[in-house]
Amino acid sequence: MSGMPHISLGNDAPGIVGLFLYRQETARPLSELAEFMLRGPNTLTAGERELIAAYVSRRNECDFCGASHSAFAAAQLDSGMPLVDLACDDPGTAPISPKMRALLAIAELVRRDGRSVTEEAVKAAREAGATDLELHDTVLIAAAFCMFNRYVDGLATFAPADAEHYAQSAELIVKHGYLAILP
Amino acid sequence: MSGMPHISLGNDAPGIVGLFLYRQETARPLSELAEFMLRGPNTLTAGERELIAAYVSRRNECDFCGASHSAFAAAQLDSGMPLVDLACDDPGTAPISPKMRALLAIAELVRRDGRSVTEEAVKAAREAGATDLELHDTVLIAAAFCMFNRYVDGLATFAPADAEHYAQSAELIVKHGYLAILP
Repeated sequence: MSGMPHISLGNDAPGIVGLFLYRQETARPLSELAEFMLRGPNTLTAGERELIAAYVSRRNECDFCGASHSAFAAAQLDSGMPLVDLACDDPGTAPISPKMRALLAIAELVRRDGRSVTEEAVKAAREAGATDLELHDTVLIAAAFCMFNRYVDGLATFAPADAEHYAQSAELIVKHGYLAILP
Repeated sequence: MSGMPHISLGNDAPGIVGLFLYRQETARPLSELAEFMLRGPNTLTAGERELIAAYVSRRNECDFCGASHSAFAAAQLDSGMPLVDLACDDPGTAPISPKMRALLAIAELVRRDGRSVTEEAVKAAREAGATDLELHDTVLIAAAFCMFNRYVDGLATFAPADAEHYAQSAELIVKHGYLAILP
């Protein structure tokens, strides 16, 4: 997304960071949600959860969130960005676990419309080893990025083009978490 | 939405209330977000903001959120449910202010895809009197309900069929706010 944001933010920070500076009252619960969903105690690793966030954001074609969470996933998964790209391009053939493949399939259904999640998709994820809590968290992460993507793009925020920007953000997030970017 | 939720929630509370009981760690930031967005200090009234939430939820065909926020809007708007129904069915002809008409048009664009919000739609809302902050909050409310709707329907939660259930919830929310439904 290039050009000017739809409203005057009073800062030139990119993506959701500019929105957090503009509206600090909503920045806090949104950051706390991201911190717990993506980095709190969980049987899914932080890298796996960031991969769900990256996958949904890239399917929604949200440049800022897609590049950000791809970098955050890559920084926390052994095979780095090549794996993230393969998984986001086609989870069906990417070298990921059957459980992650089934959870990404559910994330895609949530992305399209919550009502499209079928008993069959849930059963397939269970058979691949997913727990109820992992199913819940996958649905919530996918749903939350349908919000974050629309928030960031609906106000036409700026997304840096250089990969280095997102790699630097990844270092900050992995080390200090989402609450560290609060104004 | 009838039938059983996709996961075992351990409670039979409907819609997002059952999810909040199941996953209290994410219930708090989600409730705090709703409380500030929909009931915090604002130049849009609580009724107007609930109308945006109801409109998006009904367009997304989320029964629980649609009925809930319609009831919450009706309880806080002078013309009650008849106006909410007219506005949700066709904002273009409903007896609402030109500003609300323009903000609902933006909410619908956000609902479809954040990238579909045009300079023209933003300009029209400004000409009808919308401020930057009102534009921001409208985009965030619409985006957030694209999350809440997917969360509630993606896990196939239960939505009561009787209007009385939602009217009672409205009394609670109007009087005590969204933090009062936290477990």
